[in-house]
Amino acid sequence: MNKGIPIVISAPSGCGKDTILEQLFKINDNLAYSVSATTRAMREGEIDGVSYHFHTRESFKSMIKNNEVLEYTEYCGNYYGTPKKAVQDMLNEGKDVILKIEVEGAMNIKKIFPECVLIFILPPSFAELDRRLRKRGTETEETIAARIAQAKNELEFADKFDYLIVNGELEKAVTDVNTVILSEKMAAKRNSQLLEQIKNS
Amino acid sequence: MNKGIPIVISAPSGCGKDTILEQLFKINDNLAYSVSATTRAMREGEIDGVSYHFHTRESFKSMIKNNEVLEYTEYCGNYYGTPKKAVQDMLNEGKDVILKIEVEGAMNIKKIFPECVLIFILPPSFAELDRRLRKRGTETEETIAARIAQAKNELEFADKFDYLIVNGELEKAVTDVNTVILSEKMAAKRNSQLLEQIKNS
Repeated sequence: MNKGIPIVISAPSGCGKDTILEQLFKINDNLAYSVSATTRAMREGEIDGVSYHFHTRESFKSMIKNNEVLEYTEYCGNYYGTPKKAVQDMLNEGKDVILKIEVEGAMNIKKIFPECVLIFILPPSFAELDRRLRKRGTETEETIAARIAQAKNELEFADKFDYLIVNGELEKAVTDVNTVILSEKMAAKRNSQLLEQIKNS
Repeated sequence: MNKGIPIVISAPSGCGKDTILEQLFKINDNLAYSVSATTRAMREGEIDGVSYHFHTRESFKSMIKNNEVLEYTEYCGNYYGTPKKAVQDMLNEGKDVILKIEVEGAMNIKKIFPECVLIFILPPSFAELDRRLRKRGTETEETIAARIAQAKNELEFADKFDYLIVNGELEKAVTDVNTVILSEKMAAKRNSQLLEQIKNS
């Protein structure tokens, strides 16, 4: 059995990343999702190991020190990060692991997993992104302007990714992400074992 | 409009390359096929520019000299080669151009078209390849042995390709080749223009 592939999905806020992933898991049954670790308090209804892996600050700091997180950030006084072992276990089981990581953090993953695939989800245009953010009805003018500015900044990293997928129409974007994953499974560099088997057949 | 991608398809004899391509053109309407040039005599029923581009030895030699062929070989006293301009014209029209080139020749294409995609079609096993060659009913024991030996030799180049696709079941192999082509269209390196458009939107 081949090892799975770490698939990093990044996108500016409002590009429909979560909806794409939700649909993607319905059409590809070889995917696994990396549950993040955090030091923030567990909220009502949350389950340890499903919503998050809940840690004390000390335990999280020791994870960082022991190189047990793929990447982490500190936000509002709490740590958030991607546990390395869980991801590695799923990869060893042959699962392709979806890592939902913010754009700048994604750049560091390739150093840890050189075999990973970096996918950047793009809005069709900033006008459309603006329209989608307004449609939510929950954002202030200020927040919308801030999100657009952040998206513009994040797009500066897009050319460092392996694939660019425009989320114009949801169904197409989902198929596109899946096409990239299925294609990467056939990359020669990931199939040296298969090649040896056929050579020796 | 983006330029098309040169797609090199190579496979040992008996791996079903021609059948795969025939089916592939039915499901992907953005493909074009590169018609080879040759110096051999035109046979009955053949059409110049469709079956082959027919050339005199002098004209073919001058094409080689002027760097107008992507690759060429001499076989049974005749030249066979891939005309460069026709391929470039189709690429400029945005067509993805299928280049059916034998395994060793494929290695040279990347020097001319660094953006090309190299796909190697594999048999599921040598036992299966042997079975398929026998099934044709036209091959002698000697020819079969020679083809298997040649296939073994060609498989030594397989790890130099970008993708490995096993032709176990025809329909799956056709879908797999198409998946690779569609995925490569989304490669970030091929979409810098799209990215600029969105950045400036």
